Amino acid sequence: MRQVGVIGASGYVGQQLIWFLNNSKYVNVRFMATYNYANQGFSEIYNSYYGFIEEKCISIQDAEDRLEEIEVVFLALPHGKSFHIVQKALEKGVKVIDLGADFRFDSYETYEKWYGVKHEAYNLLEDAVYGLSEINREKIKKANLVGNPGCYTTASILALYPILKSGIIDSKSIIIDGKSGVSGAGKAMNISSLFVECNESIKAYGVASHRHTPEIEQELSKASGKDVNLVFTPHLIPMNRGIMCTCYGKLKGNASQEKLYQIYNDLYGKEKFIRVIEKIPETKNVRGSNLCDIAIRVDKRTNTVIVISVIDNLIKGAAGQAIQNMNLMLGLREEEGIEILPVQI
Amino acid sequence: MRQVGVIGASGYVGQQLIWFLNNSKYVNVRFMATYNYANQGFSEIYNSYYGFIEEKCISIQDAEDRLEEIEVVFLALPHGKSFHIVQKALEKGVKVIDLGADFRFDSYETYEKWYGVKHEAYNLLEDAVYGLSEINREKIKKANLVGNPGCYTTASILALYPILKSGIIDSKSIIIDGKSGVSGAGKAMNISSLFVECNESIKAYGVASHRHTPEIEQELSKASGKDVNLVFTPHLIPMNRGIMCTCYGKLKGNASQEKLYQIYNDLYGKEKFIRVIEKIPETKNVRGSNLCDIAIRVDKRTNTVIVISVIDNLIKGAAGQAIQNMNLMLGLREEEGIEILPVQI
Amino acid sequence: MRQVGVIGASGYVGQQLIWFLNNSKYVNVRFMATYNYANQGFSEIYNSYYGFIEEKCISIQDAEDRLEEIEVVFLALPHGKSFHIVQKALEKGVKVIDLGADFRFDSYETYEKWYGVKHEAYNLLEDAVYGLSEINREKIKKANLVGNPGCYTTASILALYPILKSGIIDSKSIIIDGKSGVSGAGKAMNISSLFVECNESIKAYGVASHRHTPEIEQELSKASGKDVNLVFTPHLIPMNRGIMCTCYGKLKGNASQEKLYQIYNDLYGKEKFIRVIEKIPETKNVRGSNLCDIAIRVDKRTNTVIVISVIDNLIKGAAGQAIQNMNLMLGLREEEGIEILPVQI
Amino acid sequence: MRQVGVIGASGYVGQQLIWFLNNSKYVNVRFMATYNYANQGFSEIYNSYYGFIEEKCISIQDAEDRLEEIEVVFLALPHGKSFHIVQKALEKGVKVIDLGADFRFDSYETYEKWYGVKHEAYNLLEDAVYGLSEINREKIKKANLVGNPGCYTTASILALYPILKSGIIDSKSIIIDGKSGVSGAGKAMNISSLFVECNESIKAYGVASHRHTPEIEQELSKASGKDVNLVFTPHLIPMNRGIMCTCYGKLKGNASQEKLYQIYNDLYGKEKFIRVIEKIPETKNVRGSNLCDIAIRVDKRTNTVIVISVIDNLIKGAAGQAIQNMNLMLGLREEEGIEILPVQI
Repeated sequence: MRQVGVIGASGYVGQQLIWFLNNSKYVNVRFMATYNYANQGFSEIYNSYYGFIEEKCISIQDAEDRLEEIEVVFLALPHGKSFHIVQKALEKGVKVIDLGADFRFDSYETYEKWYGVKHEAYNLLEDAVYGLSEINREKIKKANLVGNPGCYTTASILALYPILKSGIIDSKSIIIDGKSGVSGAGKAMNISSLFVECNESIKAYGVASHRHTPEIEQELSKASGKDVNLVFTPHLIPMNRGIMCTCYGKLKGNASQEKLYQIYNDLYGKEKFIRVIEKIPETKNVRGSNLCDIAIRVDKRTNTVIVISVIDNLIKGAAGQAIQNMNLMLGLREEEGIEILPVQI
Repeated sequence: MRQVGVIGASGYVGQQLIWFLNNSKYVNVRFMATYNYANQGFSEIYNSYYGFIEEKCISIQDAEDRLEEIEVVFLALPHGKSFHIVQKALEKGVKVIDLGADFRFDSYETYEKWYGVKHEAYNLLEDAVYGLSEINREKIKKANLVGNPGCYTTASILALYPILKSGIIDSKSIIIDGKSGVSGAGKAMNISSLFVECNESIKAYGVASHRHTPEIEQELSKASGKDVNLVFTPHLIPMNRGIMCTCYGKLKGNASQEKLYQIYNDLYGKEKFIRVIEKIPETKNVRGSNLCDIAIRVDKRTNTVIVISVIDNLIKGAAGQAIQNMNLMLGLREEEGIEILPVQI
Repeated sequence: MRQVGVIGASGYVGQQLIWFLNNSKYVNVRFMATYNYANQGFSEIYNSYYGFIEEKCISIQDAEDRLEEIEVVFLALPHGKSFHIVQKALEKGVKVIDLGADFRFDSYETYEKWYGVKHEAYNLLEDAVYGLSEINREKIKKANLVGNPGCYTTASILALYPILKSGIIDSKSIIIDGKSGVSGAGKAMNISSLFVECNESIKAYGVASHRHTPEIEQELSKASGKDVNLVFTPHLIPMNRGIMCTCYGKLKGNASQEKLYQIYNDLYGKEKFIRVIEKIPETKNVRGSNLCDIAIRVDKRTNTVIVISVIDNLIKGAAGQAIQNMNLMLGLREEEGIEILPVQI
Repeated sequence: MRQVGVIGASGYVGQQLIWFLNNSKYVNVRFMATYNYANQGFSEIYNSYYGFIEEKCISIQDAEDRLEEIEVVFLALPHGKSFHIVQKALEKGVKVIDLGADFRFDSYETYEKWYGVKHEAYNLLEDAVYGLSEINREKIKKANLVGNPGCYTTASILALYPILKSGIIDSKSIIIDGKSGVSGAGKAMNISSLFVECNESIKAYGVASHRHTPEIEQELSKASGKDVNLVFTPHLIPMNRGIMCTCYGKLKGNASQEKLYQIYNDLYGKEKFIRVIEKIPETKNVRGSNLCDIAIRVDKRTNTVIVISVIDNLIKGAAGQAIQNMNLMLGLREEEGIEILPVQI
């Protein structure tokens, strides 16, 4: 059994990590650490685990002292909280998968500008690998530090990567209209996350200023070899899980829909967790799974490509992809423990 | 009391019409006609009206025979079903407000192309007025036949009209990403409208092909004096009511956000049912009301304007605007009977 | 215009009060006071009021100093917070409608036992009238202090009053299974009220210990002249508004369903806000209104009466009934300002 | 690999069966048959299976012709549709698990009375075993025909069996107040199952007449050795999945809560799929799993026991329990393929 630790186990992403790690035959969760629930049983925090995962959570402090017991550590902490622990883990030879934003950027200036926090471990950025499994697979296999992508960014990059890489659309024309379920807001105490406030309403937020923007731009710029600037508008949808990104770009020439499907199938045809589909995606079709569904439409009237992608934000957009990356890093079968089919209803 | 009739009273829009007409001091509903519920009490179809509106619905046939009893008739029928009745009503001097798509287009060819139905009353199109109250107010006052706008189209046109009229954005760059609650699908028997199918999921539909596209283009082309072609992508959201349109356009020059707010305030500042607001709109803030909330953002990084509008799809997007138009046509106070404040929770 | 004040205007009940008071032709809201939002515009707290109710909220302290400006004060505060203000208001001749629990009990011992708080104004209890409008109408008309009923209690008492008064069921056999939307939990910061925690789940709470139990027992005991002890189990339902109480009692003899309907119709037949209906009630049929729908079934196999009642918890269960009581106290038409029809969708 | 067939694969229960059977290492689904979707790929009916289960459905007719290929057949058909196929399957030596109501009753008269259908295979009833796995485990192991319990009935019987068996409550005093998510209504075309009709509302249905009543009574009568008559009231809750049964019974003597917990723990302590818990259950804690959570409270004021149970209606209330029964019948490990943990969010 490979030994792993989870730091930040009490949030929604942490919980999902525990769920999947418990599902994996080759991995053992050595400890679960949290800021606020140390000494509480995990099943006291999430009652669904009663009788199955009764272990107590430990403090972040204690987790740091026990790093030598594990081979991989997952961090599911708010941004700005991972610098120290990551450094310490790497020093002890523990591989790190950070699900926050601290190690996703090539440039610490970009991070500091968008997150308003000083980066206290920027020397590590050079060796950190951006953990979009399908795109950086070979690098991830060799990485000691993975910056696991954000939820919107996973859905956006997977949707736009093929047409930007192929140079078929104008890299300055991109608009991403994102929609997310409320679990994306995390298990945090905000009036605006109350049931009555979210239910039966839609709102946009972070318009022209959301922090996932530079992350998407960075990765798509690398893919296209051009400077990608794009508009990203996230929206909050009254449902628990799921992200849809509706992406728009102007065709440079006259590519047909068939041609575009071919590009996507060429790139993604062998991927276990990406389905290029004819029907327009619905988030329920990937709920509970690590899948990303993508469909493409060409609007000939306006020469616009519309690419629509859906993921489960807590899985392919967070915990599932983290485990996919762990599998790559540990030389396990890539889909080990995350093969579960979607739960459509 | 002014006498009116409602044909198509049993759908969600028809129901909302009855609710508001009942709320108006100067109007009396002379009859309610339906295809499928003739001879049933209205409160049998919608139990909430028990004890308040017990009158029986009549057949469409009977409604046609009673047109002389009324001054205005509302039609809330599927497209392609209004041609004959509208003709008959106009012949008898009854003013018509058609909430379907049959009289919204200047060109019957456009209608026939997008709706796949032969237009059997195209001679009436010339005199039909597009019923977007705030934009065509003076024409509506004199109209005998009003084609009441669609729900997405109302939200989209109100959002984009000021910047297109002012010529500040590229009229070929527009993208409208629409989100609607499920009542927009009507009270129709479709597996895809079942609770379990819609709940906890988002989907896009009618991508690059939705019938509201030419309607929005027609009205915005008139506003801008240019040929507007745009991308419109509607999405289904798991909530009963509400539409949000997130609209994107490229700035021609360098207008500031303040400048744009000024343009909107100049045009809409005195409107009773349009609120140009600083905060990003949420559909709940207009729920149950005839209001449209609009906010504007300039994304300087990409020189893009983002205009976000919200309405209650059954009210400003259908029944409320129809009554607003009726008030204009009958010389009543424009807000009569539809002044109710939003029900935020 | 009659002048009123609202203390505790920022909660969900307070908001609903403001909505209805604004709808009343004869009443003016002189001030809105809150604990946490003093000096903020009401429309900043509830954005739906933007452009309509822009007045700033004041502090509770300031409200106390301005009691002489008003004729009636509404208190929508947590229990244990009203003692002092009520006393002060009454001294100044201001009529009081308290929507909390502090003045609902005949016995301060009962209050102290169930609420765990010392009653600091028990001398006022003797003159306080329990504000269930339909049952205590005449007393309310003359009251200076009304303890407005709880939401579950309103639905429960209206459901059970007729059969207990008539002596037709065993007063020791009553079980009330209540179901409430989440707005009943108020606008309070609790992890358990987050969207993700409530959505797609049901839970029971306060089993065998909920504080509405003694309130229901007190009023039903008075009605029946017997010592009523009952079981009350509330449940949380993933929806914003609405309460349903499914009430069970054993028939003493063999009364038929028709006979029971007659008893209910005799008592409630002339009530404006109670509908005794044949169909099984649904909460949506009263949503947004001050109505209470009640249906009765006799299960002959077990000789059990099942009475099902529904209300909108924020209206007939709180703000609407408070205004109904105000109308009675001020000699206005009982339904003034609260006549709005339900919004079924 | 053990070969099985599913007849009625296109409904919500059928879909859930396919999901779990696909999850089982020892079982192969030989065919999926449906009334309305023959020749359609399963992933066309449920798009979430795209790329995973592409096999075409066959007709019921064809399924009958292929019974010899399988060892077990699952029937997920409306009541009254299974008589013929079950007979045929048994003749061919195929074990049958019927998820409908046709083989749940000891007496065909009871079935005919409550279901209004003539029982055309009543000779098989004697050998049919009621498939409540935990209660009839030994019989199920030897059975050729299992009548799989209804969803409400599973939750109700598991809740009440221990206290009725122990004789601790009055068998004539039982009231079951059930609450179910909308998937319980199946994938059927009903206006009343539309999103807009169900969302944001609760309703009761089948009051004093629901068909699960005699099923619960039959099994509890056997458990207690007495004639159990009870009141059962189901309610529809706006969520996809989950059932809660709040059960009430009068204590004969003065048993303490601790004593009752002991009774439940004695009976269920070793069960893999039943958790006797201290906290009040929530349906989300069992969602997606085959678990049943049960908590007990004694209301001393009224000498009433309140037992609250929750299950996932599509799993422990249907497909999961069916597979649990299949495992018993085939000598597989009882939890094979259905060990998945709940998905709380």
